Amino acid sequence: MDRRALTELLARVQAGEITVERALDALREFPFADLTFAKPDTHRALRTGQAEVIFGAGKTAAEIAAIGDRLAAHGQNVLVTRLDAAQAAELLGIAPAFTYHPEARVAVRKVVDVPITGKGTILVVTAGTSDGPVAEEAAWTATLAGNVVERLYDVGVAGIHRLLDRRERLTAARVLIVVAGMEGALPSVVGGLVDKPVIAVPTSIGYGASFGGVAALLAMLNSCAAGLTVVNIDNGFGAGVAASRINHL
Amino acid sequence: MDRRALTELLARVQAGEITVERALDALREFPFADLTFAKPDTHRALRTGQAEVIFGAGKTAAEIAAIGDRLAAHGQNVLVTRLDAAQAAELLGIAPAFTYHPEARVAVRKVVDVPITGKGTILVVTAGTSDGPVAEEAAWTATLAGNVVERLYDVGVAGIHRLLDRRERLTAARVLIVVAGMEGALPSVVGGLVDKPVIAVPTSIGYGASFGGVAALLAMLNSCAAGLTVVNIDNGFGAGVAASRINHL
Amino acid sequence: MDRRALTELLARVQAGEITVERALDALREFPFADLTFAKPDTHRALRTGQAEVIFGAGKTAAEIAAIGDRLAAHGQNVLVTRLDAAQAAELLGIAPAFTYHPEARVAVRKVVDVPITGKGTILVVTAGTSDGPVAEEAAWTATLAGNVVERLYDVGVAGIHRLLDRRERLTAARVLIVVAGMEGALPSVVGGLVDKPVIAVPTSIGYGASFGGVAALLAMLNSCAAGLTVVNIDNGFGAGVAASRINHL
Amino acid sequence: MDRRALTELLARVQAGEITVERALDALREFPFADLTFAKPDTHRALRTGQAEVIFGAGKTAAEIAAIGDRLAAHGQNVLVTRLDAAQAAELLGIAPAFTYHPEARVAVRKVVDVPITGKGTILVVTAGTSDGPVAEEAAWTATLAGNVVERLYDVGVAGIHRLLDRRERLTAARVLIVVAGMEGALPSVVGGLVDKPVIAVPTSIGYGASFGGVAALLAMLNSCAAGLTVVNIDNGFGAGVAASRINHL
Amino acid sequence: MDRRALTELLARVQAGEITVERALDALREFPFADLTFAKPDTHRALRTGQAEVIFGAGKTAAEIAAIGDRLAAHGQNVLVTRLDAAQAAELLGIAPAFTYHPEARVAVRKVVDVPITGKGTILVVTAGTSDGPVAEEAAWTATLAGNVVERLYDVGVAGIHRLLDRRERLTAARVLIVVAGMEGALPSVVGGLVDKPVIAVPTSIGYGASFGGVAALLAMLNSCAAGLTVVNIDNGFGAGVAASRINHL
Amino acid sequence: MDRRALTELLARVQAGEITVERALDALREFPFADLTFAKPDTHRALRTGQAEVIFGAGKTAAEIAAIGDRLAAHGQNVLVTRLDAAQAAELLGIAPAFTYHPEARVAVRKVVDVPITGKGTILVVTAGTSDGPVAEEAAWTATLAGNVVERLYDVGVAGIHRLLDRRERLTAARVLIVVAGMEGALPSVVGGLVDKPVIAVPTSIGYGASFGGVAALLAMLNSCAAGLTVVNIDNGFGAGVAASRINHL
Amino acid sequence: MDRRALTELLARVQAGEITVERALDALREFPFADLTFAKPDTHRALRTGQAEVIFGAGKTAAEIAAIGDRLAAHGQNVLVTRLDAAQAAELLGIAPAFTYHPEARVAVRKVVDVPITGKGTILVVTAGTSDGPVAEEAAWTATLAGNVVERLYDVGVAGIHRLLDRRERLTAARVLIVVAGMEGALPSVVGGLVDKPVIAVPTSIGYGASFGGVAALLAMLNSCAAGLTVVNIDNGFGAGVAASRINHL
Amino acid sequence: MDRRALTELLARVQAGEITVERALDALREFPFADLTFAKPDTHRALRTGQAEVIFGAGKTAAEIAAIGDRLAAHGQNVLVTRLDAAQAAELLGIAPAFTYHPEARVAVRKVVDVPITGKGTILVVTAGTSDGPVAEEAAWTATLAGNVVERLYDVGVAGIHRLLDRRERLTAARVLIVVAGMEGALPSVVGGLVDKPVIAVPTSIGYGASFGGVAALLAMLNSCAAGLTVVNIDNGFGAGVAASRINHL
Repeated sequence: MDRRALTELLARVQAGEITVERALDALREFPFADLTFAKPDTHRALRTGQAEVIFGAGKTAAEIAAIGDRLAAHGQNVLVTRLDAAQAAELLGIAPAFTYHPEARVAVRKVVDVPITGKGTILVVTAGTSDGPVAEEAAWTATLAGNVVERLYDVGVAGIHRLLDRRERLTAARVLIVVAGMEGALPSVVGGLVDKPVIAVPTSIGYGASFGGVAALLAMLNSCAAGLTVVNIDNGFGAGVAASRINHL
Repeated sequence: MDRRALTELLARVQAGEITVERALDALREFPFADLTFAKPDTHRALRTGQAEVIFGAGKTAAEIAAIGDRLAAHGQNVLVTRLDAAQAAELLGIAPAFTYHPEARVAVRKVVDVPITGKGTILVVTAGTSDGPVAEEAAWTATLAGNVVERLYDVGVAGIHRLLDRRERLTAARVLIVVAGMEGALPSVVGGLVDKPVIAVPTSIGYGASFGGVAALLAMLNSCAAGLTVVNIDNGFGAGVAASRINHL
Repeated sequence: MDRRALTELLARVQAGEITVERALDALREFPFADLTFAKPDTHRALRTGQAEVIFGAGKTAAEIAAIGDRLAAHGQNVLVTRLDAAQAAELLGIAPAFTYHPEARVAVRKVVDVPITGKGTILVVTAGTSDGPVAEEAAWTATLAGNVVERLYDVGVAGIHRLLDRRERLTAARVLIVVAGMEGALPSVVGGLVDKPVIAVPTSIGYGASFGGVAALLAMLNSCAAGLTVVNIDNGFGAGVAASRINHL
Repeated sequence: MDRRALTELLARVQAGEITVERALDALREFPFADLTFAKPDTHRALRTGQAEVIFGAGKTAAEIAAIGDRLAAHGQNVLVTRLDAAQAAELLGIAPAFTYHPEARVAVRKVVDVPITGKGTILVVTAGTSDGPVAEEAAWTATLAGNVVERLYDVGVAGIHRLLDRRERLTAARVLIVVAGMEGALPSVVGGLVDKPVIAVPTSIGYGASFGGVAALLAMLNSCAAGLTVVNIDNGFGAGVAASRINHL
Repeated sequence: MDRRALTELLARVQAGEITVERALDALREFPFADLTFAKPDTHRALRTGQAEVIFGAGKTAAEIAAIGDRLAAHGQNVLVTRLDAAQAAELLGIAPAFTYHPEARVAVRKVVDVPITGKGTILVVTAGTSDGPVAEEAAWTATLAGNVVERLYDVGVAGIHRLLDRRERLTAARVLIVVAGMEGALPSVVGGLVDKPVIAVPTSIGYGASFGGVAALLAMLNSCAAGLTVVNIDNGFGAGVAASRINHL
Repeated sequence: MDRRALTELLARVQAGEITVERALDALREFPFADLTFAKPDTHRALRTGQAEVIFGAGKTAAEIAAIGDRLAAHGQNVLVTRLDAAQAAELLGIAPAFTYHPEARVAVRKVVDVPITGKGTILVVTAGTSDGPVAEEAAWTATLAGNVVERLYDVGVAGIHRLLDRRERLTAARVLIVVAGMEGALPSVVGGLVDKPVIAVPTSIGYGASFGGVAALLAMLNSCAAGLTVVNIDNGFGAGVAASRINHL
Repeated sequence: MDRRALTELLARVQAGEITVERALDALREFPFADLTFAKPDTHRALRTGQAEVIFGAGKTAAEIAAIGDRLAAHGQNVLVTRLDAAQAAELLGIAPAFTYHPEARVAVRKVVDVPITGKGTILVVTAGTSDGPVAEEAAWTATLAGNVVERLYDVGVAGIHRLLDRRERLTAARVLIVVAGMEGALPSVVGGLVDKPVIAVPTSIGYGASFGGVAALLAMLNSCAAGLTVVNIDNGFGAGVAASRINHL
Repeated sequence: MDRRALTELLARVQAGEITVERALDALREFPFADLTFAKPDTHRALRTGQAEVIFGAGKTAAEIAAIGDRLAAHGQNVLVTRLDAAQAAELLGIAPAFTYHPEARVAVRKVVDVPITGKGTILVVTAGTSDGPVAEEAAWTATLAGNVVERLYDVGVAGIHRLLDRRERLTAARVLIVVAGMEGALPSVVGGLVDKPVIAVPTSIGYGASFGGVAALLAMLNSCAAGLTVVNIDNGFGAGVAASRINHL
């Protein structure tokens, strides 16, 4: 549309219908951003044909269903994150096209198939079973963005042998997402065992001086394993997007 | 050496010189890690032939020179970070093989040439001129790890046109490192303009309620631009290593 | 009344009914503040004839209704902020003169018309849809104080083109209120695009290391866009009053 | 220049020298920001003919002198903030065109006269004598931006009569900047005495649990005096710019 | 009892029934503290004949009633603090000897009359109406400890004339308790108007950057009014005890 | 199993069925950790025959019952911590083999008797009655790990004689666990009275500036009584494990 | 003077020289505060004839000497706090009328004798020898305000017998100032041993998680010893003023 | 002495020289603490014949020498901690009986031999070389308290094989002190490999979001390895004392 408007303007210049001066004025007022940035709302969306993401916390089932309908109408898969069981029950009541995955607190509405476009495997690793929902949010996000995702769960550092036993799986991955709460030490150990990109995700698992995940976050930011990068506490979605971007290089 | 010891042990089993039982016992005590993890000290080193990194802050010139000699003897380039002018002067007095780059606060001792092994360009972006040293630390780290590195400096968000004018450079990069102090908003804007991996580096530039970089760090962790990952305050080195890992995929 | 009392006192001095000495004593005890500061309770009120504001959180419907009756009896419009749906339902049950605006979490009881006394337009800008209630609180506060208020919502920095497309609206405003949660970067960008006063309002939107709005607050306080001023987290009301004060200059 | 380039492009379309298609491609790559945003670096500058501001802390005298020369060559006055006595002595040694004002820690290089363009008086108020340098930074910033600035110093709340005695001066101002350290209570009191915009500036004056100005900052953000806005700790410059923007409405 | 035991021991020494050596050994094991410190549990109790205090939060009605019975049996009045309406209803159902004062969230069981033993008046001052419950907790605590208590409520600093109008009441008090939330500025102003002891009580009233009363607490600790002392957030009880101790000197 | 696999491998070397080279390769891939670390999941378990511990908070009764069945089937006692009354009621409904101890918020399923293997007495001391549940969690943990546990409750420092009266009990213990909330001073006093190991446990008892136990935690970390060590806020379980490890030396 | 001006005004009303209307206008502008508050700058001063206090930190010797001369000329003793040895040496060089007390970091210029006007003894207690300077600042402040001051130093809680041995001295005092760094536990213990007012002073003595005195401050605010009040970290001066106010009741 | 005084008192009762009544009064005033607590100042001292410890930071060489002389005269070894090179040089100039150990920042004055009284080996483990001084402070403290101390340095988690290679040394120790800065993860890993007491010591090594050791401290407090206990940041001395207490059981 904007392209069309601009084409028309230039055509009128070409046809001599308006002067260069007036075209200059018109251009100055032109909504150029729409022209120059093709990709719409890249900060909230995965690529078209894959999934658009809705942050479910604090939204009503009706709101989610409505956004979902609009997206599905554009041929986009829909991923709803941070959806608790009560919200999900209500959502599925009014929008049965969604499937709910309680272990990930996500609901998915699949409209089109997701081709595998990522080049390697993204491995999601967790320290404890309680870190599961955040890890699953990352895994679902990456999966719906076209990546092969594997999981290696409950290999925290206080039983280091469980991790070392699976070192082949660690080294086989192209990108790693390491999820941990409490002292958040796992990414440091993993970061020392591989030479691939490692994205650390602190979780709010813990109590007392864990301060809702701050202890794990600080540990990860201060990791002695160089090359580690970190996302916000419980931000499985962000880690999934980042890993997918890397895996599509 | 360890490999040799293990070979000997197996040979003796083969030769029937020791029983399986005793070999089992011996293996149980074996320093297996040396065997199974080929890569030495991966957390502090870039790949051999490139650069080994020394954190210069708090070290004497003599200590740095000594470590440098040892590394150079193994055919490794040496990168010293966080080296102020006074330390540098002293270091060059006793170890003239180093070159000092004051704008990056790094000293480099080049022993071997660094072939370009990274696949694309790493672009280092800064919000203000004061963020320069951290950006340069990242740039030098990535360069010595075999990457093509470009720079786009002083394009902070309060003069957003300066950034938008260079959008071709942003989209041309394979990996982006975005360095900002104060309110740390630049990575969010850049993250919305590209679909490549963006590593955000908060700096301690600012005063008062910047709390030595905490304001920028929090802003980056809470970015609405999905896919952003973050490293510690002023950690240009870590960002350089992470970007290089990604660029070598 | 107080003025009357003082007039009487002076008249009695004039009439010689009391000595200067006794008048001196009487004056010393006089409630002079009432005399010297005409404007009553300016810290909680907008100007008479416009709206008096009640902070609704933690108050019962009965309490709000009672205060509302008293104010309305003095010919003042009443604005109740931070009123959730349940409180509102109860309030309207017993005080049907109120209208509830759920998108702003405010209830309004209009007693007199509000003439437009502000000189220009106050533009309320938000980064995301979740920032809406705080923005609406600001908008309603300014509206009831006699200002023309416009809205520009959901133009966060990760999709910078959406903001730039509307730059005419930004520059047309006389005062701007910019509302953002998460990384709180929007006011910095807006502050660089206009040369009018910009009031930044951090919101508690976010999770993890947003610490209930602290990340956004710090970002705004550390903005590289000079001339920005900041109010408390979620304080739409305060921003509305400040903007109205400026717009009435 | 950019305007010239665009004019040429349109002229070539008009002349039929290039097709609409190619013009479209060319426009897509055009550095439009330079075109559309006339005002250069608005975030760091006051209006031309007045003063450009340099943050002096951490800069060498040579750097400051060089920037100063460049700005002066463009006919701009120069204001250097956060300049301690030692830096100042060195600066004046190599750039005698500067005058140093130690009470404000600023140096000024006046190239052109500053006409009074602000409409009313900006009053700068401080709680204690130690808040002086921050207040003076605000006062100098506003003065060089073309405002009449008055000062009312050392009227802290623990001797409330000193403030009340000068209430005429408070009510006579069009914009107020209130500077306070320690418990930061003064802006709340002033905010209750006037109905003009009040900008609160916390300072780092204090010790122990003042946490470098955090106590004062929090007090101001939580002020019960509605309509108060706040800037960063010790940010006299920001307050001066904000007050000037308001005073030019 | 202990005194009796010790008397017996000494009598047996006197009677030559046990040797000095054995008496020495016995004394070493003696529960001497009971002997030497007459006052039992002074940290939780007001003086006998007055009131014993129970912290009600988190206790069941049955627990409170039981403790109350035990104390009453010893002739002590009982003050229960932090008791919400639901707890109170339940308590009065099973222990009708209590009276509930909802404005103070306290329940009182009066067993004996409380003679006035404090020497002057304790004045409890609040900044806003929301600070009422904390103030009332202080007032009830001091009253039941035998003090004359007066109240001066809702005289916050943003309407400073309301406070100044009552300055006679301020100067008439022997001890002052000043209760404020939000920016916590009132104690500083009061502290500058009187030369009597002022106890500042921060409350958790506020939102956002008030951090549950931390802003007010810090303001009070950093007060420029020398001679101010501070208690914990919402600790009306502690302020009441401290004021009573002073008023009994 | 792994041992068997390794035995087979060595037997084949011995039998000359595979070369040393190939055995070397096979060993490199061997899950050595299982071999070398006999003790499974030592970080979450007490020794077999004693109790396995389940963190009950956030788990459903069904989940707990299921884990309990699995553990009991292996002949292990089960200790469930952080179990509130509602959870407990539900758990006992479906798993009547558990006994609930409300004062400790723990449920115990005893499968085998616990022999006393600790060498001395572990004394659990509390400052106030509210610290009881954390203390009981420590006591139950230590008891089920085979220790003699004694209790000395409600001997806080503001009534120091209550503590001093029981000094024999303090000095009789081999290891001490000292539990305190609020100002957390008790461990410092106890640490000065004994020369045995003292483990300090801060609790979240308190309000306002206790910040959920942070005040007590900091006090304990800064204790002037050398030799004190500290665990996380409310971490009675951790203190019980640490004390048991020491008591088994 | 002001009283004289007001008398004149009333006399002219009485004499019919001015109308009531004009007198009313004149009164509205009257500097009433000077009239109504006799006591000048009570927040920074002790009573006349005693000492005026100068906060020495950050002031030059010349500034201090000048203020000292002015105060001495008004017949006031001068107390300079927070004066390090270097400052003191310089001060005594130019103002030999001062005496320096290095153990208190204070300098005193005595102009008139200080009569004992406080009614009892103020006892200053410290936990450790490092708390000395803060304690001495309190002691000197109270002494120069006309109080008998006694000292009981180095009786920290980890050697509780040292404190208990001097319990007579504790109970003999009318007001107690208790100074402690590190875990700040001493005021709680003292508060349980006496029934007099106890003012707790946290000091910045400590390292690591003492956070410059925050640990001690929090401990004191959360003390289980009711009736304790607290001042800012290292604020010996404030404690001295508060104790003196109490001791003069 | 006190024992003698008490003996005399009892003898006089026995001899009938004083009545039981008077003896009772005398006992009430008796300095009982000296009697009942034999161990002098246990909080600052190791056992006699071993070492007394002086915290060197902030003390002059003369002060240290004087305390050292006094202790040595009582036949005690002296350990001075936190002594930098400059202090040490000055100390050895005036007190040559001290030996300085720069790697531990301690000075030792040995008066008597230290017999080995601890029952097993205390192993001090560090994550990085920078953690050395804190580790050495712990090691020297434990050594002078009569323990066999071994060291295992630079085995941080990012190169986990270096730790695993030495697992025999870990399991051979009776008590472990694990020292780590940055992310503080090492104690969690070690705690999972041994079943002996592990004391974790966070160090201030790190920058940015390490916040002077807070990141490491929080990680250790939140360790998933049960049985870990923690001391203050950089508190090698405290860890040494705690380990020695345990090792003497």
